[in-house]
Amino acid sequence: MARTPRERMVLSAAQLVRIQGVGATGMRDVVAHAEAPRGSLQHYFPGGKDQLIAEAVTWAGDYAARRVARVAAKIENPTPGKLFEAMAAQWRDEFTRDGFDGGCPLVATVADTAATSDSLREAVGKAFDGWQRPVAATLEQLGVPPVRSASLAVLMLSALEGAIVLARAHQDVAPLDTVVAELRPLLDGAVDKRRRRG
Amino acid sequence: MARTPRERMVLSAAQLVRIQGVGATGMRDVVAHAEAPRGSLQHYFPGGKDQLIAEAVTWAGDYAARRVARVAAKIENPTPGKLFEAMAAQWRDEFTRDGFDGGCPLVATVADTAATSDSLREAVGKAFDGWQRPVAATLEQLGVPPVRSASLAVLMLSALEGAIVLARAHQDVAPLDTVVAELRPLLDGAVDKRRRRG
Repeated sequence: MARTPRERMVLSAAQLVRIQGVGATGMRDVVAHAEAPRGSLQHYFPGGKDQLIAEAVTWAGDYAARRVARVAAKIENPTPGKLFEAMAAQWRDEFTRDGFDGGCPLVATVADTAATSDSLREAVGKAFDGWQRPVAATLEQLGVPPVRSASLAVLMLSALEGAIVLARAHQDVAPLDTVVAELRPLLDGAVDKRRRRG
Repeated sequence: MARTPRERMVLSAAQLVRIQGVGATGMRDVVAHAEAPRGSLQHYFPGGKDQLIAEAVTWAGDYAARRVARVAAKIENPTPGKLFEAMAAQWRDEFTRDGFDGGCPLVATVADTAATSDSLREAVGKAFDGWQRPVAATLEQLGVPPVRSASLAVLMLSALEGAIVLARAHQDVAPLDTVVAELRPLLDGAVDKRRRRG
């Protein structure tokens, strides 16, 4: 299905932010990257750069959230540790295939704008929440007691985001492998066998 | 001891980067923040912005590295879990006292420049290495087998950096508390009681 110019601009903004951050991403770069008509930016995003980046952040959060269930469905004999491994593997695969140019747009947006734009910071907060929820829900489906699922989801997101930053700094996927190997026993150990569903 | 204009510029660059990222931090902002003479930038940093930011990153890494031993020395009956708690507490205290404007300059520099500047990316890689080493060494002093100390240090840095990003996005220290509570049993469980020193 062909994307509208508006959709292309949101995707391009997310893509440029995850490569070069918010500060270096100009509105003209987004229009050029999206091959959108000049002037369409003002038309579609009357709130300017903040609105465009906020929508890019929201898109990225929705994308990450949707992938959780899709990734979980593909795991054989899924466990919490395997879920985390599969989430990290998406990044591992991308880094291995495409190099380390792109990081997480949510991290870049926090780093560049948390102190200067309440609306962007709130958009990122919502995006993290929207990603954390399906992770916690999947953990519960795998038998993690509800009282632990949210905190383990926070731990998984934190360790994954930090390891992505370390991997990019070192141009090496090893930090991703390390956090997966170290967290797997902890995550799998959180399963209450009586609660496991499915 | 009074700092030289050169030192003040490096510190100001680190401070501005951790608040607004690399992209938004102009050379003039740094000179103004450091109250340094105009023109001194070219004199002290002939390599321009990349050199200045690289030195800021190196300074930030050294600072984090030096604090590890200092923080560890203050813990009563130290354990790996308490070390991680103390490292997170520095951020918790700063966020509680000063608000959430400042994040980690290493994360901001990776987000903004990893794809566009090899020299900056390498500076951040070295800074992370220089921070990871004393963490691993301290873990070994606390009885963690050498074969695990580096991977647990990577896990600690990753979880801490990710939790800092989440805390800033949510304007809430809860993610820091969560990763500390979830990782403490894992970290303390890595101690081989026969190896514990001191």
